[in-house]
Amino acid sequence: MPERAIGIFDSGVGGLTVLRELRRQLPHEELVYLGDTARVPYGTKSPQTVGRYAREAARFLVGQRVKLLVIACNTASAVALDDLAAVHRLPVVGVIEPGARKALEITRTGRIGVIGTEGTIRSRAYERALRSLDPEVAVYATPCPLFVPLAEEGWAEHPVARLTAAEYLAPLLRQGIDTLVLGCTHYPLLKHTLQEVVGPHVELVDSAAETAKTVASLLAAQGMEHHGSLPAAPRFFVTDVAERFERVGGAFLGAALTGVTTVDLD
Amino acid sequence: MPERAIGIFDSGVGGLTVLRELRRQLPHEELVYLGDTARVPYGTKSPQTVGRYAREAARFLVGQRVKLLVIACNTASAVALDDLAAVHRLPVVGVIEPGARKALEITRTGRIGVIGTEGTIRSRAYERALRSLDPEVAVYATPCPLFVPLAEEGWAEHPVARLTAAEYLAPLLRQGIDTLVLGCTHYPLLKHTLQEVVGPHVELVDSAAETAKTVASLLAAQGMEHHGSLPAAPRFFVTDVAERFERVGGAFLGAALTGVTTVDLD
Repeated sequence: MPERAIGIFDSGVGGLTVLRELRRQLPHEELVYLGDTARVPYGTKSPQTVGRYAREAARFLVGQRVKLLVIACNTASAVALDDLAAVHRLPVVGVIEPGARKALEITRTGRIGVIGTEGTIRSRAYERALRSLDPEVAVYATPCPLFVPLAEEGWAEHPVARLTAAEYLAPLLRQGIDTLVLGCTHYPLLKHTLQEVVGPHVELVDSAAETAKTVASLLAAQGMEHHGSLPAAPRFFVTDVAERFERVGGAFLGAALTGVTTVDLD
Repeated sequence: MPERAIGIFDSGVGGLTVLRELRRQLPHEELVYLGDTARVPYGTKSPQTVGRYAREAARFLVGQRVKLLVIACNTASAVALDDLAAVHRLPVVGVIEPGARKALEITRTGRIGVIGTEGTIRSRAYERALRSLDPEVAVYATPCPLFVPLAEEGWAEHPVARLTAAEYLAPLLRQGIDTLVLGCTHYPLLKHTLQEVVGPHVELVDSAAETAKTVASLLAAQGMEHHGSLPAAPRFFVTDVAERFERVGGAFLGAALTGVTTVDLD
């Protein structure tokens, strides 16, 4: 069992920020990544449709004989985590609870902002996760639909991104938040711009890093860590042709992306 | 046959700009619209995947016993028009040739700009259509990936849209174009902003209006016009739940959108 890979899925390239952290924190683990690029994005779609896509993605990765499943997409974590954990006999880790825990660790004022896709924000999954850990916390959430296309366009530090961020974040800043959860795996690319807009007194929470920590402690607790020789390079699968994933994904992975295989889920 | 409906499909809400023109120009025709909202957008996906989605959409509309099929999506028109016209025994009209014809009618300098999604621009379908009608024409094309999310966010006239348009269009303006084809059915919503950015000496071509004209003359030529009493309201189908389509689509249709039915294509 310990020698099996960790399976990671996302609607597209965003989850590569999570894979990148997993590689950094768990260099001995084999990784298999699936990006559902034929149906990306999930963030504007209904819980029913995202739930169906997530089930198909999970089934594919379980077929790759993984030991643990990471839902590296906030929208899918928000609507499908419980469902997938109930269906599959292996640990399933989403990106929401790790980010929520970290936000509560660092907030001093108990006023937390959350940004994400329409789907994630509508699901209120962060509010639920935060309030179940601390019922006193004040949560201010807002969707930022333009951040994903801005990150994919390579405009993360463009004046357009700054102007967009200023507009989206103004209501949260008026609420006096001191912590801002980046509730979408695309958003770490916008970190510099977001930090500039919110100023030095608001701390950003990147759920990619927190999710990798959760995976590490879960593997350790269950004796499922792999300690052998360094693994082969991650294996990448997508549902549309690989070209755009390889081109856009490099910025998310922080390295060149090649050898991606196309598969059909539906 | 004349009493049958016209079938229209798009990846989502964009094609509603074409439906709106069809209603205006052909008020006696029944209309059936399909938006493939579970898999929107098509513009960033490969020709193979868009081709498959277009075949499934066309099959659904043909099953609704339509007399003519309109591909109200530039990306799908670019990659799937010939294929669909070959498979189905009914006229199939795309949005590219009508826009190309209009651009050639109005250009004085023969320098034409084309904007669209990544998929449409990569396909070079507008270049081919324009050059097959006039081999002397100079075509300057550029993808504008942020325009679709900006239109769907309701930010068509927001400073962010102006700044984005100025950046995307600068290379085309440097080429001295006098005509700009809006090669995406979302872009008519950005008309005011685009006109402001290109100035009064560049004329915009809205393929929605041109496509409706092409449909009208095709029906007239084939004796397939419907002259009876005014038809029922258009019927709308989507592949994801109707809520977001109804909410966002109103701006594209220019009227409230209700009574949308969800169907499963795959």
